[in-house]
Amino acid sequence: MALLEHSKYSQGSVLGGVNPDLASERQTASFSVEKLTVWLDGGEEHTQKRRAVVEAIERDPVFSRENQYFQSQNERYEAAVRKAVHLQKKMEEMGWTESGPEFKYIYRAVSGDIAFLLHRIFIRSISVLGSDKQIAKWIPLATQLKLIGSYAQTELGHGTYLQGLETTAVFDITTQEFILNTPKISAMKWWPGDMGRSATHTVVFAQLYISGKCYGVHPFIVQIRSLRDHSLCPGITAGDIGPKMNFEHVDNGYLMLQNVRVPRENMLNKFCEVQPDGTYVRQGSQKINYFTMTTVRISLISDEVIIPLMKACTIAIRYSVVRRQSKLKPGEQEAKILDYQTQQEKLLPQLAAAYAFHFINDYLQELFNRGYREIQQQNFNTLPELHAFSSGFKAMVTQYSTSAVQICLQACGGHGYSSLSGLPSLYTKIIASCIYEGENTILLLQTARFLIKCFRAASAGQPVPPSVTYLAAVKPGKCPAKNKLEFLSPNIYTEAYQHMAARLVSSTAAKLQDLIQSGVKKHDAWNQCTVQLAQAAKAHCHYITVKNFAETVEKLKTEAGIQKIMKHLCDLFALHGIFSNAGVFLHDGYVSGAQMDMITASYLDLLAVIRKDAVPLVDAFDFTDKSLNSALGSYDGQVYQRLYEWAQKSPTNQQMSPAYERYLKPLLHSTQSKL
Amino acid sequence: MALLEHSKYSQGSVLGGVNPDLASERQTASFSVEKLTVWLDGGEEHTQKRRAVVEAIERDPVFSRENQYFQSQNERYEAAVRKAVHLQKKMEEMGWTESGPEFKYIYRAVSGDIAFLLHRIFIRSISVLGSDKQIAKWIPLATQLKLIGSYAQTELGHGTYLQGLETTAVFDITTQEFILNTPKISAMKWWPGDMGRSATHTVVFAQLYISGKCYGVHPFIVQIRSLRDHSLCPGITAGDIGPKMNFEHVDNGYLMLQNVRVPRENMLNKFCEVQPDGTYVRQGSQKINYFTMTTVRISLISDEVIIPLMKACTIAIRYSVVRRQSKLKPGEQEAKILDYQTQQEKLLPQLAAAYAFHFINDYLQELFNRGYREIQQQNFNTLPELHAFSSGFKAMVTQYSTSAVQICLQACGGHGYSSLSGLPSLYTKIIASCIYEGENTILLLQTARFLIKCFRAASAGQPVPPSVTYLAAVKPGKCPAKNKLEFLSPNIYTEAYQHMAARLVSSTAAKLQDLIQSGVKKHDAWNQCTVQLAQAAKAHCHYITVKNFAETVEKLKTEAGIQKIMKHLCDLFALHGIFSNAGVFLHDGYVSGAQMDMITASYLDLLAVIRKDAVPLVDAFDFTDKSLNSALGSYDGQVYQRLYEWAQKSPTNQQMSPAYERYLKPLLHSTQSKL
Repeated sequence: MALLEHSKYSQGSVLGGVNPDLASERQTASFSVEKLTVWLDGGEEHTQKRRAVVEAIERDPVFSRENQYFQSQNERYEAAVRKAVHLQKKMEEMGWTESGPEFKYIYRAVSGDIAFLLHRIFIRSISVLGSDKQIAKWIPLATQLKLIGSYAQTELGHGTYLQGLETTAVFDITTQEFILNTPKISAMKWWPGDMGRSATHTVVFAQLYISGKCYGVHPFIVQIRSLRDHSLCPGITAGDIGPKMNFEHVDNGYLMLQNVRVPRENMLNKFCEVQPDGTYVRQGSQKINYFTMTTVRISLISDEVIIPLMKACTIAIRYSVVRRQSKLKPGEQEAKILDYQTQQEKLLPQLAAAYAFHFINDYLQELFNRGYREIQQQNFNTLPELHAFSSGFKAMVTQYSTSAVQICLQACGGHGYSSLSGLPSLYTKIIASCIYEGENTILLLQTARFLIKCFRAASAGQPVPPSVTYLAAVKPGKCPAKNKLEFLSPNIYTEAYQHMAARLVSSTAAKLQDLIQSGVKKHDAWNQCTVQLAQAAKAHCHYITVKNFAETVEKLKTEAGIQKIMKHLCDLFALHGIFSNAGVFLHDGYVSGAQMDMITASYLDLLAVIRKDAVPLVDAFDFTDKSLNSALGSYDGQVYQRLYEWAQKSPTNQQMSPAYERYLKPLLHSTQSKL
Repeated sequence: MALLEHSKYSQGSVLGGVNPDLASERQTASFSVEKLTVWLDGGEEHTQKRRAVVEAIERDPVFSRENQYFQSQNERYEAAVRKAVHLQKKMEEMGWTESGPEFKYIYRAVSGDIAFLLHRIFIRSISVLGSDKQIAKWIPLATQLKLIGSYAQTELGHGTYLQGLETTAVFDITTQEFILNTPKISAMKWWPGDMGRSATHTVVFAQLYISGKCYGVHPFIVQIRSLRDHSLCPGITAGDIGPKMNFEHVDNGYLMLQNVRVPRENMLNKFCEVQPDGTYVRQGSQKINYFTMTTVRISLISDEVIIPLMKACTIAIRYSVVRRQSKLKPGEQEAKILDYQTQQEKLLPQLAAAYAFHFINDYLQELFNRGYREIQQQNFNTLPELHAFSSGFKAMVTQYSTSAVQICLQACGGHGYSSLSGLPSLYTKIIASCIYEGENTILLLQTARFLIKCFRAASAGQPVPPSVTYLAAVKPGKCPAKNKLEFLSPNIYTEAYQHMAARLVSSTAAKLQDLIQSGVKKHDAWNQCTVQLAQAAKAHCHYITVKNFAETVEKLKTEAGIQKIMKHLCDLFALHGIFSNAGVFLHDGYVSGAQMDMITASYLDLLAVIRKDAVPLVDAFDFTDKSLNSALGSYDGQVYQRLYEWAQKSPTNQQMSPAYERYLKPLLHSTQSKL
């Protein structure tokens, strides 16, 4: 089955230069791709650092992802551990430190295929929840990988609702130990990463009992595997939870505890302590802990959501100018599929969303840095707003991006469905972000609770955070735009979003009020409004994203070419949102049917405009071919050549299947004489 | 790692009866599940036949899917071949024939994991396109599996646009042979199932050349592998295209041809023939061929789309009454997640859609049977309508169901993401249905072309098929409903859908007309309207689906309990569609904002009503546990027990990973003394 025998197929191969259909797209860019890249990175220096990290990682064969699409779960896990251990050395060798400027680029450079992320959460939880003494004991061992930690919170029967956890930790005053148990199957720890096969230790969250009284959920450091031979410790049952939709490289695990004893010192006790006589003491504020959860939610948006979305856009858009299908004009060559309006309408709004989310991420980071400074000064006033933001944006951005990656995949037709396109793995991974770190619907309802509270406060003339003052200003009105061009004004569409979000919040608040006044109990009334509450929370986040995009474009003065194309993308993001959610804008007549036609016209016009710069706009994301790992999305556009070359490496082509000898041969042999 | 040691974990195990939370759901059904099942099957006799087939297949260990989620692509392929070969024997043993009543249940019973589906297409294409002589030669060999066939149409660079195929077949008058070639890499055959590793023969579609003149695409039977040792024939390069998002069990293949000669008799020549002297003769009508494509599209809806959707609903709904999370009322037990409005709003509309699509499938089957009878009498008048229906419904039903399965998956939180839930594989398989047998957007545009044509004809007073006469009746108007209860009237909502679909078709026709009159060329104008044309086609199909559901309920007199719950589902399907696409109903004021609030209220009320019967409604689909192959969805609801038992069988738990010896041991051994 040795292939590539006829040299003519190698023409225009990987070594054969850029596909001319793709090359021509780059010659007509209306702006400098390099300048856009640098601006997105936040400056020349950052671009250089990022590229240096990516280059160092990709040059190192240990980090190769070359055969990833062919590997089993066992092989993926092994590779991830290898990379994690090697990274430790690499960082030393390169002089990269956890607090250094290069650190944030490493995860992007390894494309996430690395073990011990939960080990990092183990470290973080001890740093935040542990006493100085506990930190001094455990952190050096953990950072040098002299133990492997995990974080055992989720149980088979309990996820987001932490108070419901069923694992128990009973204080035994006679031995000064906690006795940990899994009282029933639903209490088994389930899902913690790095726990199925790697971890020697884990932080177990359990209900603390002292003298028969329950004090709620607390964290305990528990050793689960021997440091000598990695066998399970007495009383421990643990293993891997098996195959998942993705994350084959992670050993998500299960854990059962049977009378497992840990010393009193193993309860993380910065905020709560059990004294030797069994006295329970709560000390300090736990609010900072609340802030940590919030931070995790925000930090995942960039690495786990925006980067995969940008990759999917890069792959789908490059492929869509290489792929030709049917004829746009009779008698002409077959057309690039990106020249079809329907293909533009699939892909370009996703591209605009990738930019919109990049900017909202900057905004959130800034908000959090400010919040963090205030918290360090013991000012916790912004916490509710930060929590509401982190919840709502995590939900909105992950759900939107998941749909976007799905659209990119489907827009590539059959080849998008091949693993070699890279799109299936991007999709099956990003969809998990809708579930982990808080299930999206629950998060949206937390944001909604904040919005309803602020709406009521604002209506009563009380002060509310600046981001939600608009809620008080809701009144009937009509959008003033008179023709399709006026809908390209950020003021016009931002106000439409503001009006719509405020209306959804206020009308749901009114429904809630009505139900309660009609005698429905508060919790039932809340439940009966949750579909609309979630919708209102999404609308709020959508509005803030549009507003922030418009403000980002407004502030961008340095480079006219870049500002112009960013303005187009901002318009597209905003009008796409109105076009796709027309009902909520038309509902109270703020936008009329005739105006919706103008919006649609402007929206469709924009597609044709942005189409011209589509390839430069994804080139600016600056992904290497190794990072994309896609036969469809490489910089040179040699799509068919790469699909063919990569397919040949598949294990399905390495040998004759035993199915031939066993099942086919007996049938086929009887045929010979007849043909 | 031997588990299940403490007997207490086995309480309520697989052997321990039905989970009480699930059992209680079945005690309050408002109708007889068995009667609903029989009605869905079309009568007692059909239910019995189906159950007999399922039982016979599931009792046979060769058809087991027990370890499917742990298997590699190679193992899946081998199992699929084993099953396909065994099925041949099984059918003989059971007395099932291809034309018998049991045949249609076999595919459901094996859950699709079987090889040689393309072999069936090979047979079908010869039967339809071959002469009597060709049929006599090839069909007996193929049906006895004395050769394995495939169907090589799609190329690396060409899918839906068949005229663009690049493979060539040049007639050599001196040897009376066709010489087949793959002139460049984009012409390589790519994707045909059963071709990568199994097929000995295939039907190759190639551009026919005689004396330098091209006669377009024609089908040729080509042998690609030796019947003696399965090696590739001279001039043939072939292999497997590698991993995909699903379909691991299928050997989708590639094929290159280099001066491959086949005798003149190998061109399928029922409709076209090349005579010995090189004269090209076209005979008979090719319209029947057109009809075959249409039939395939319709036939896949049931097996590949509706059944997976029903399975996903069954899994998600059963799990949602076993899973408890947070509290609905303070002080009470944690609530079943299906008691949350947001969870109902995710799942119940998908359940309603599963029923809606089951009924529209019946409708389409009937339409096609009628069409087929007419065609046999040489009446081809209904072909355009049938083609438009098959295209539009294939696109609408596959896209809708793909989203629905995704919603089911995400609604199960983390456990839905585990392969053991069965949901990831249902999802990754159903999404392919949006692409194969015609990419959905292209199909919708074919339907739109038919609708525009009919709209113009109807407006000019010319006759049009009955299904589209409504297009002529479009006029401004207002929905007459005055309160939320009136929106539970099928006449009210069916008319709203009809009005909306007709408006979208007519307004797009007007835009098209305007563009052409303003001087835009016809093909450019068409391209500039395609986003709206696709929307109009979808709206038409949605309308017909609602109308058909309402009519099905209306005709259902036998069983009051069933009619009542079907009426609720019909209302839900219809109102969900209005709620989710509010913009197109509000746009011209047919539905006012105040009416949309009534619709929303009725819609949300319905959720609580149908919630009570949710479990009996999925039980009625009558899937066995083996068929669902889901740790979350089994009949007894022993969710956690099964997840745990199944996880232990994962290959990730079969041995210590080599990663330990290689990477972890050296690190951890240095730690021992310190802890």
